Amino acid sequence: MFITETQIRVRYAETDQMNVVYYGNYAQYFEVARAESIRKLGFTYREMEALGVIMPVVEMQTKFLRPAHYDDLLNIKTILRELPVNYRISFDHEVYNQEKRLLTTGKVILYFVKMGTFEKSEMPGALRSVLTPYFQ
Amino acid sequence: MFITETQIRVRYAETDQMNVVYYGNYAQYFEVARAESIRKLGFTYREMEALGVIMPVVEMQTKFLRPAHYDDLLNIKTILRELPVNYRISFDHEVYNQEKRLLTTGKVILYFVKMGTFEKSEMPGALRSVLTPYFQ
Amino acid sequence: MFITETQIRVRYAETDQMNVVYYGNYAQYFEVARAESIRKLGFTYREMEALGVIMPVVEMQTKFLRPAHYDDLLNIKTILRELPVNYRISFDHEVYNQEKRLLTTGKVILYFVKMGTFEKSEMPGALRSVLTPYFQ
Amino acid sequence: MFITETQIRVRYAETDQMNVVYYGNYAQYFEVARAESIRKLGFTYREMEALGVIMPVVEMQTKFLRPAHYDDLLNIKTILRELPVNYRISFDHEVYNQEKRLLTTGKVILYFVKMGTFEKSEMPGALRSVLTPYFQ
Repeated sequence: MFITETQIRVRYAETDQMNVVYYGNYAQYFEVARAESIRKLGFTYREMEALGVIMPVVEMQTKFLRPAHYDDLLNIKTILRELPVNYRISFDHEVYNQEKRLLTTGKVILYFVKMGTFEKSEMPGALRSVLTPYFQ
Repeated sequence: MFITETQIRVRYAETDQMNVVYYGNYAQYFEVARAESIRKLGFTYREMEALGVIMPVVEMQTKFLRPAHYDDLLNIKTILRELPVNYRISFDHEVYNQEKRLLTTGKVILYFVKMGTFEKSEMPGALRSVLTPYFQ
Repeated sequence: MFITETQIRVRYAETDQMNVVYYGNYAQYFEVARAESIRKLGFTYREMEALGVIMPVVEMQTKFLRPAHYDDLLNIKTILRELPVNYRISFDHEVYNQEKRLLTTGKVILYFVKMGTFEKSEMPGALRSVLTPYFQ
Repeated sequence: MFITETQIRVRYAETDQMNVVYYGNYAQYFEVARAESIRKLGFTYREMEALGVIMPVVEMQTKFLRPAHYDDLLNIKTILRELPVNYRISFDHEVYNQEKRLLTTGKVILYFVKMGTFEKSEMPGALRSVLTPYFQ
């Protein structure tokens, strides 16, 4: 299992007139958390795209348990429970506020595909190498 | 069953460097489609908030089957399969492009709650009245 | 002079906890209005990009006079006062609400540049042809 | 003069199909930079709103000199050149990338107004107290 934590401060732009973070903005938080998760492996998603592999999201499930508010310092736990065996990768996310209350949970499934053709692809070898030790 | 269709033109802002609509933006499309769905009943979500009832989203599931592109004229089908029996309402969404290909599906579950306290609430009577005929 | 009008309904996502449209969202409204302005000429910005010409924004000035609110049906007037003589084009925007009150004004300056190199470019001939009659 | 610097990592959501940060997103960067600027004074914008004072933006000017890209670590310099004498405050912003190249400049003018009535208001005394030493 590979787990990382990322902090995100809620922007004013991300609130709506319900005085809470708009439900659509969590997808961005999950994206940032995934990117930071990969960065902690000594790799970046940007580099992966430079290698011609992109990761479109194919599925997302989100539960909104409690609202986040402006200026909250969110802690996003990103969990990779299984090492991908093919072109599919699944991340779990848990969003906590500064009082350590669980606000939101998310599952995001992505594919590795080739840039341009969107043809399904394997996880890049460099990423697999740095991830494998977490699953032994 | 109550079904409506809403058209949305993809904005440049909604694309990302993958040349497709960013996955996080579908939540906005679903929101617009829900609002237009309610408007077709001769009611508006804005009026409902003025009556002190708000509808936070508590759950969302999305499948991204095919990408949407800049300037696509999307058609979003919004389906209310069941008349709510309490504070919970569930909408299904299907996003099609101008070639009538299904791009994305979504299920969004919301609660009716009281503004201020977020206490669970019944669906407003006025909304129930206009919806009931579709479920008989 | 070439003037067009475009209607945009304010989305919930576009409000913030001040109960008004977040100031950063007007840039999107201006973008939509420009795109519709070009479409009314029988041309689309999408087609122009397909021809290898893109239009990055190089300057924007905005005055926020009165707030827009959720569900407002905005009318955006887009004014092209001068036919471009080189790679530079300037649009004026005026945002009105359904009570015809002026909410926001904007000036957006863009360049025509070549995709890939970002090298300055002339306005495409096809666009010039359809625009010229408005400036005679 | 009061100057602060804030780092923001570009999100994938903030790019568009031109492979650069969408021009409309700089308003959010400026907002974050202003909020961090106030925080460095030992005060938060959130607290100010809790005191019943809000700060709507009334004017913004932006020049886009060079594009920002996905995953860039931007450095945003926020400059308060003058201590407000009434309800009006003006911030200058400069956005640099990790190669210290100036990408974007912005000027944002805001008013202090009373929540609810939007009546013009003085800068809160607590904020004035902590700012004054920088202008002596």
